[in-house]
Amino acid sequence: MQPIYNIAEICAQKRVKHVVLCPGSRCAPLTLAFSRQGSFSIKVLSDERSAAFVALGMAQQSKQTVVLICTSGSALYNFAPAVAEAFFSGIPLLILSGDRPTEWIGQQDGQTIFQQDIFGKHVKRFIQLPQEYAHPDNIWTINRSVNEALNLANNEQPGPVHINVPLREPLYPVNNQPVHFVKDVRIINNTPKEFLLSDESKALLIKHWKQYNKVLIVAGQQPANRALTQLLQFNIEKHNLPVLADIISNQHKLIQAIKHADAFLGQAPDSLKESLHPELLITFGAGIIAKQVKLFLRKHKAIVHWHIGTEEQQADTYQSLTHTASVSPESFFNFLSTLDKKESFDKQKKENYQQVWQLEEQKAQALISGFFPAEMLGEFEMVNEIIKQLPNDTNLHLANSMSVRYANYVGLTEKHSSTEIFANRGTSGIDGCTSTVVGHCLANPEKLQVLITGDIAFFYDRNAFWHSYALPNLRIVLLNNHGGVIFKLIDGPADLKEVDEYFVAKQKLSAKYLCAEYGIDHLVIDSRKKVNNQIKNFFENDGTPKILEIETDTNLNKTIFESFKKKLKERYES
Amino acid sequence: MQPIYNIAEICAQKRVKHVVLCPGSRCAPLTLAFSRQGSFSIKVLSDERSAAFVALGMAQQSKQTVVLICTSGSALYNFAPAVAEAFFSGIPLLILSGDRPTEWIGQQDGQTIFQQDIFGKHVKRFIQLPQEYAHPDNIWTINRSVNEALNLANNEQPGPVHINVPLREPLYPVNNQPVHFVKDVRIINNTPKEFLLSDESKALLIKHWKQYNKVLIVAGQQPANRALTQLLQFNIEKHNLPVLADIISNQHKLIQAIKHADAFLGQAPDSLKESLHPELLITFGAGIIAKQVKLFLRKHKAIVHWHIGTEEQQADTYQSLTHTASVSPESFFNFLSTLDKKESFDKQKKENYQQVWQLEEQKAQALISGFFPAEMLGEFEMVNEIIKQLPNDTNLHLANSMSVRYANYVGLTEKHSSTEIFANRGTSGIDGCTSTVVGHCLANPEKLQVLITGDIAFFYDRNAFWHSYALPNLRIVLLNNHGGVIFKLIDGPADLKEVDEYFVAKQKLSAKYLCAEYGIDHLVIDSRKKVNNQIKNFFENDGTPKILEIETDTNLNKTIFESFKKKLKERYES
Repeated sequence: MQPIYNIAEICAQKRVKHVVLCPGSRCAPLTLAFSRQGSFSIKVLSDERSAAFVALGMAQQSKQTVVLICTSGSALYNFAPAVAEAFFSGIPLLILSGDRPTEWIGQQDGQTIFQQDIFGKHVKRFIQLPQEYAHPDNIWTINRSVNEALNLANNEQPGPVHINVPLREPLYPVNNQPVHFVKDVRIINNTPKEFLLSDESKALLIKHWKQYNKVLIVAGQQPANRALTQLLQFNIEKHNLPVLADIISNQHKLIQAIKHADAFLGQAPDSLKESLHPELLITFGAGIIAKQVKLFLRKHKAIVHWHIGTEEQQADTYQSLTHTASVSPESFFNFLSTLDKKESFDKQKKENYQQVWQLEEQKAQALISGFFPAEMLGEFEMVNEIIKQLPNDTNLHLANSMSVRYANYVGLTEKHSSTEIFANRGTSGIDGCTSTVVGHCLANPEKLQVLITGDIAFFYDRNAFWHSYALPNLRIVLLNNHGGVIFKLIDGPADLKEVDEYFVAKQKLSAKYLCAEYGIDHLVIDSRKKVNNQIKNFFENDGTPKILEIETDTNLNKTIFESFKKKLKERYES
Repeated sequence: MQPIYNIAEICAQKRVKHVVLCPGSRCAPLTLAFSRQGSFSIKVLSDERSAAFVALGMAQQSKQTVVLICTSGSALYNFAPAVAEAFFSGIPLLILSGDRPTEWIGQQDGQTIFQQDIFGKHVKRFIQLPQEYAHPDNIWTINRSVNEALNLANNEQPGPVHINVPLREPLYPVNNQPVHFVKDVRIINNTPKEFLLSDESKALLIKHWKQYNKVLIVAGQQPANRALTQLLQFNIEKHNLPVLADIISNQHKLIQAIKHADAFLGQAPDSLKESLHPELLITFGAGIIAKQVKLFLRKHKAIVHWHIGTEEQQADTYQSLTHTASVSPESFFNFLSTLDKKESFDKQKKENYQQVWQLEEQKAQALISGFFPAEMLGEFEMVNEIIKQLPNDTNLHLANSMSVRYANYVGLTEKHSSTEIFANRGTSGIDGCTSTVVGHCLANPEKLQVLITGDIAFFYDRNAFWHSYALPNLRIVLLNNHGGVIFKLIDGPADLKEVDEYFVAKQKLSAKYLCAEYGIDHLVIDSRKKVNNQIKNFFENDGTPKILEIETDTNLNKTIFESFKKKLKERYES
């Protein structure tokens, strides 16, 4: 098993720190390798679906590859939802699955499925390790493959890599012999690619820059990046650029960012949309939440659309893409900042494009601030209150599907300069939102990790708590409307007679028993007068995980949300 | 959407009864089709992993194809563990997944993953439906494909079929227009293949039959089948055949079946094994539990090994396969029953092969019966008691991994003539054992459904309870040793210093809070004197689901199990 034990040594030397291990027998040589190597922080979790999201959260928090180990059979298939999320949101995971030797696949010898290539296009690469170690080429292949997998998982476009490890019996050291580690395993280092804007691209960009006055920037989902935000700020001020920034773009420090486009574009009249129509669109980052922005940009297509980023996949979300620049947003905006201001200052002023956007933003912001307190206390208001009182140096996690939308309507401000926003928007699933936050808690126990979630996402992923690790820095706001409220709020299902039975899917649970079961503080808000006190208790740091639950009626939330949309609309009618 | 609505009509006319629906927006046209068609029993479940196992349980219970519907994105990927189990255990499922139109895959438009062919080799077929309905060929294809899928899912080798359904907006009927069903949709009927033993095969079998005296039958996992068991009984008596029958083979009505081979072969001396060595091995059904039988048959290989069954995959579990006969076990044993008794009666008698097996079986049976009460009350004894007191007309479900093994050591007898055994042995996963039983409860509310499970399998799949359906016929025996006790019992990990931390993976929960949360009766056994009373309460039919929990120490169970093995061994040493 020496070549297998060496996998742990290679991972250690390539600075893997976190390992998530799902117990099993077939993966025993990997378990022994990683536990005895001595330099890893290992977490043991039994539900593989949750475990994989925990690993994803750790990798997202630490920005390092996390190793995820499981045994053979359907255990591995339970990783699938998190693997897909990691793939689409670019999070580095190295999955090591124990397997029977290939001869035994399909021979009715228990716990055997088709593990080779099991995740299809949802991993950056699949590697099947040799199962014989007699020939030196096998040893070479194992070493080379593990190096390659680690280099791939966390290069300029991170993501999951899967190595399937067929293992023959005996799986355990005979006579309990010690496990040795070869310290001089070969390491293949990787100097990341550097992407630079070519002179040709620069010339073209300068041409477009001169040609078009209505220039719109749209920031997609991305991690917080102080340098990039500063560059954007500089460009906004120098060039008078409107920057559309969803809450998940982590650009809330940006003064003058347009954060409420989803709200006002949904109600804006066509004439206004015409004047907001961009000529030159510049996008970067991954997807956005705002459906209204997508619809607006697909209808009011830019003449020229540059997408900036090193990702290989070319997404044409707005159906207007004309240029892709394989450079980091930093280098792009760095170059943009060197360009002269528009030649014709008068023209720019005349168009006043930025100001049209900002006026709408300010009005929407005012309307939202003035909307609360609503007549009745609902979950929208709770999200508003939580964000208002959120301590600055916090990770704020937003679950799918209504939580992230509510939070995007509310928006963060520059006051939360050290707050970072996370959301599983790669697949936008509800299946691992809590486990992902648990991963953040474990990888960074110093920082407060606050999750806003709904009841369906919360109970779906309740095995996030099923382990033996303390989570003193975990805070969960549970918006419990006992069903999938989103189906009452979006157009279409809301009007169907089937909506309650087949869409909302009522569920009765509250977090009471779950909190008792896991020793979590359970704070309840059942009236407006408790809000401030409970939120204060909730954020207090006393070494206990806490769940702040507000139970509300789906129809109440529907009424509040519709009244909000109505007020947005009235603004344009008056 | 008419071609999509017609899918429900085709399913109805092809006698699909049960539909499991996971709520979502993209699958709305499917939801509407199946709910408004009017002839289905629809169950709504929110956790797709659990929902898919519930569907599997329903299909297993009803022997009919169950339709399983979900929305786009990682929702579908959560079906994967159950899909793999359905594939390897031959259970008919039709998976219908809503999807975005193909143009929108990879365009950063939420809830989109690569759904085409997502289950790889774990489905019998993958079908991508057309997304345009303008051309008549599209309508033809949708009709033809759904017919084909249903014919495939439940033919002589049942299994899962996946249809991916790309759907364009609007997903909901405009202005809430009614949904129509075309009653004269074309139905393609399927007359199942008939497999007959060819004259050539018969001649060969007769030749082998005359040639070999030590003939051994091994029954793999299969559903209860009265006709087959009667045929086997006839053959046993006529030809003096030993039949090895694991608990999951559902042959406990067979008088003289060898049920404890796993127990005695594990300790038997080589000389005995030599005399048990078969010349002609006949196997049928799927896999077996008994590892010792596998090892024995791989070492003491039969000269000729016939495997009987219509499955396409040719498993060579014992490394001795020489003939496969693509006929049903019924027709094979029917033919066998027509063969003359061995010509040389003396020789048969001399070899006395059947009696050697039966002597060992009787001794093992006596030892096991006499083993209880053990010194301390452990989970092995609980399984023994439960089986002893199990009402006859019951479905007994055995979870992986130790529950099914304990039950196999105990074994059922002909007393349980109407009891059927179920276990997820396709992949032998712990991920959906409870949900599968919930599926049985929903598809057959009349029958008592008893599950014996361990704490890891139980809490792993706790979302089996997260829905609004009453389960009055559900009974769960929870063997709670607070970890994966199997790792203490099997050779290898038990001796490692890491066993507690990285293999057993201690967990603290009991079923107390879960029972309170879901209104389940919680019966606890914490001393021997409570056993009889609590088991009596447990089996009482008072309209409430019940969990009978026994908390035991891992080390105690280890001690008891080792003492059991020691007694088996001593028998051969004295």
